Amino acid sequence: MTQFHKTASTLIAGAKTLPGEYYTSAEIYQRERERIFNSRWLCIGRGEQIPHPGNYLLVNIGTESIIVVRNNNGEVRSFYNVCRHRGTRLCQQSQGTFNNTISCPYHAWSYNLDGELNAAPLMNELDYFCKEDYPLHKVAIETWEGFLFLNLAPNPEPFANAFAPLINKFTQWHLPKLRVAQRIEYNIQANWKLILQNYSECYHCPLVHPKLAQMSFYRSGENDLFSGAILGGFMKLNDNALSLTISGKRCGKPLGEVGGEDLKRVYYYSIFPNLLLSLHPDYVMFHTLWPQSPNQTRIVCEWLFDPNTMAQPGFDPADAVELWDLTNRQDWEICELTQQGVSSRAYTPGVYSSSESLLAAIDQEVLKALAMERVSG
Amino acid sequence: MTQFHKTASTLIAGAKTLPGEYYTSAEIYQRERERIFNSRWLCIGRGEQIPHPGNYLLVNIGTESIIVVRNNNGEVRSFYNVCRHRGTRLCQQSQGTFNNTISCPYHAWSYNLDGELNAAPLMNELDYFCKEDYPLHKVAIETWEGFLFLNLAPNPEPFANAFAPLINKFTQWHLPKLRVAQRIEYNIQANWKLILQNYSECYHCPLVHPKLAQMSFYRSGENDLFSGAILGGFMKLNDNALSLTISGKRCGKPLGEVGGEDLKRVYYYSIFPNLLLSLHPDYVMFHTLWPQSPNQTRIVCEWLFDPNTMAQPGFDPADAVELWDLTNRQDWEICELTQQGVSSRAYTPGVYSSSESLLAAIDQEVLKALAMERVSG
Amino acid sequence: MTQFHKTASTLIAGAKTLPGEYYTSAEIYQRERERIFNSRWLCIGRGEQIPHPGNYLLVNIGTESIIVVRNNNGEVRSFYNVCRHRGTRLCQQSQGTFNNTISCPYHAWSYNLDGELNAAPLMNELDYFCKEDYPLHKVAIETWEGFLFLNLAPNPEPFANAFAPLINKFTQWHLPKLRVAQRIEYNIQANWKLILQNYSECYHCPLVHPKLAQMSFYRSGENDLFSGAILGGFMKLNDNALSLTISGKRCGKPLGEVGGEDLKRVYYYSIFPNLLLSLHPDYVMFHTLWPQSPNQTRIVCEWLFDPNTMAQPGFDPADAVELWDLTNRQDWEICELTQQGVSSRAYTPGVYSSSESLLAAIDQEVLKALAMERVSG
Repeated sequence: MTQFHKTASTLIAGAKTLPGEYYTSAEIYQRERERIFNSRWLCIGRGEQIPHPGNYLLVNIGTESIIVVRNNNGEVRSFYNVCRHRGTRLCQQSQGTFNNTISCPYHAWSYNLDGELNAAPLMNELDYFCKEDYPLHKVAIETWEGFLFLNLAPNPEPFANAFAPLINKFTQWHLPKLRVAQRIEYNIQANWKLILQNYSECYHCPLVHPKLAQMSFYRSGENDLFSGAILGGFMKLNDNALSLTISGKRCGKPLGEVGGEDLKRVYYYSIFPNLLLSLHPDYVMFHTLWPQSPNQTRIVCEWLFDPNTMAQPGFDPADAVELWDLTNRQDWEICELTQQGVSSRAYTPGVYSSSESLLAAIDQEVLKALAMERVSG
Repeated sequence: MTQFHKTASTLIAGAKTLPGEYYTSAEIYQRERERIFNSRWLCIGRGEQIPHPGNYLLVNIGTESIIVVRNNNGEVRSFYNVCRHRGTRLCQQSQGTFNNTISCPYHAWSYNLDGELNAAPLMNELDYFCKEDYPLHKVAIETWEGFLFLNLAPNPEPFANAFAPLINKFTQWHLPKLRVAQRIEYNIQANWKLILQNYSECYHCPLVHPKLAQMSFYRSGENDLFSGAILGGFMKLNDNALSLTISGKRCGKPLGEVGGEDLKRVYYYSIFPNLLLSLHPDYVMFHTLWPQSPNQTRIVCEWLFDPNTMAQPGFDPADAVELWDLTNRQDWEICELTQQGVSSRAYTPGVYSSSESLLAAIDQEVLKALAMERVSG
Repeated sequence: MTQFHKTASTLIAGAKTLPGEYYTSAEIYQRERERIFNSRWLCIGRGEQIPHPGNYLLVNIGTESIIVVRNNNGEVRSFYNVCRHRGTRLCQQSQGTFNNTISCPYHAWSYNLDGELNAAPLMNELDYFCKEDYPLHKVAIETWEGFLFLNLAPNPEPFANAFAPLINKFTQWHLPKLRVAQRIEYNIQANWKLILQNYSECYHCPLVHPKLAQMSFYRSGENDLFSGAILGGFMKLNDNALSLTISGKRCGKPLGEVGGEDLKRVYYYSIFPNLLLSLHPDYVMFHTLWPQSPNQTRIVCEWLFDPNTMAQPGFDPADAVELWDLTNRQDWEICELTQQGVSSRAYTPGVYSSSESLLAAIDQEVLKALAMERVSG
């Protein structure tokens, strides 16, 4: 979804949509995998999924499987799910608990929760073999506001740099304390960038989201981040709405210390490349995007609430979930129609309206990441 | 189906079938899409499908979607199904009626039935935007004898040139008056050229079509078009048959002014690249071919009758339809077996018989269109 | 399965597994098809499948279909299943009997059981056409110990050269007399080389095959062929086992003249590229491998017994079949997990243990066949 950028429309003077190949080409997709999804920080969900030492989850990124585990010091570690002996997948269950050891099912090579090789049967017969040389391949991982972020790059950009514009921005929402009340997974036949773009303008809201449009005017609000990898701002709730829910009421009391103007605002941030973060007075929604191919994206949408609110008798997240599930499906359908159209030989880049300034900024970030000169359009 | 070319067998002296790559290579298929299916006139069916202003149908050509619509002057127009703003598909239903306007479901950009952009919300805020610059992308379309033909080329060969050999050739059949009584769609695991080739010889009829072979001798008749893009001629009906039907009887009286020798003939024309036209005394059958991949072709077969005949009590097209549906299925099966064989590394071009002269002519037309020198075989 | 190579561990000093591309790359797979599967002798099963003149079977190798037929002299012949006229598949049924003639279903061109073109309707009209020029394309075929081997190369290495290490090696088992009692087909999501490698070490047996490991100690036995295309040796049966069966008993008396030490041994040979031959005192099991793609292999496993034993009242091959079907499925699962792991960007070649010396030999044979210098790892 959905910002109107009031002030910076001059930034986009003449800006046009990307050429069709950016949505269809296998080569560009491959380049995006390498330069974006294997190089940037990716949100993989919430730390609450692995609360205790030994708890793990598997994360699939493209064709890669990553083990994310909490070690005996309570720290989160992550490794490629690949034995150092013959390459066998160590672990198959999507979630579970290790009993101090990650053991290969083929020849019983065993690693501790920090990825060190502890045991390798028979290998002591080879004098040139040294266990210290064969730890699991590490993956960088960070926690921020309760979210987990992976980075597959060998030398990733420091997280604090990449997320500088957001550090301490959302302290009032008390994000680390929140818990997932609902999770819905979608499979969309559209390029991942069309999803980001769709989220980043509300020009389409009156036609595509009649229900949502009743509660928040599509040209209300203002962006505060309008260039770079993190983009967004707020939109205002209409007089008839205290939050974005089917009823227009809040699902419990405001989160943390949210107050003042923020009680009548929804904040929307597109956090390149795979997180969409939507903060309401009473709940937070986030989408994570998982490109599957140039024209397929898996999306996981989760709704976070205060656990105290969730413990109240009669608490029901459906009021929030249903509004957005409806809105999500409307968005996915229009994104799929757009994917089909931009795949046409007749498609040529079109002119962005003044309400689509963030889309031009997303396109710039993509082109920068791909280090490609834009040649046509 | 099926001509025997009596007189011109010297034309094919030494002619051999195409090398296997012409039936299997993704590169040659892509080249065929560009140089043949995106450059030649393609039959898309009958004008009767969109009788009134506003009536439209969607046509899929490869991965393209085309809107074909009757405008307010009763003329047929066609456009790529792609909005000029962000490229969204404008229209999803395969057939329907526009109320004067083709409107994009994403941001409500709206076009009239001639493809001109009438409305584009918010775009008036941008002084450099001019609606006249953003009409829908046009596709050339023509009507001939009640058939509709599209051409995706930017500057297509004039239709009257391309179809010169056929203009006024079939006036006795009163083709524009005829109406579709039946439509059957087939999906065949064979290259589109194998379908054309199969249609263009009756050498296979005694073995593959025992029922048909009883009613029309496989070496009867004569071709009158034996080189170029349009190929064919007639075969004779045996004494036991007044038409090609299960019963051997006609389905009603002869069409239009068909008389004399034509009452005992069936005319078969292969109209490159996607139309097979078969004229019987009492009905007309046509196949349109839609390549899906090097080894997959979708075929639509339709049977046309005089609407007055169709209005008679007891009229039943099944007598004609069943004979040809049986014959079609026999042909598709043998084409699929041929596709499998020509995909073998052991396959080498074979010698055409004297009954297969039109096949050599088809191959020549393909090679000319691809502008490829034939290197092997 | 499963040898421990006692004596030659110095041969593998420092040997590492192959780089990941050998298990995933479409280009290397294509090269393997050409240089290995289209160039080496492939086991296609047993001659007993076509006992009488005219009996045939179809063999699929990659995308090729081959007719294997017994001619009127009782000799086995094989041909590509491709008509010399238009390339049509001559034959569709996987097994059957020709009545002296192989006839094309399209235009009735007919061949005898030696592949000579006997009849070609209408072709006598062309003075330049000569039937002798259009026999079916031949494929080399040989019989050894009752097994049939095809070779798609135009000038194959003589079978006796290729199989020199095995000629007269297994005479005591009376292999030509044996008959298939059971056949099971498996489809595995793993590269064919992982299957060969898995068969060639028993380092994994204690963990993967607890039942089998009870009956044969994983470090027993010795290899007698440890370099080149044919690799293997024997493992010993424990005191509690007379054969590898669920019960530990033999399924009938020992085969042929098997006696002495061989009554307490199982011989395992990996015969590059597609045969795994496992000789037990009382039965013989063989696997044939059919790569379908870089990460898919079809495997046919068959169990051979003495027909006299099979004729005994109460004979039941299940005791042997079930033990190995269980073991097979355990192997396929771990091979599939290994395929997934070696497909990771993080996978790097690992060190072979002293129990995996034959795997290093297989890798050498692959690299030699591909004529590729090993560059990385």
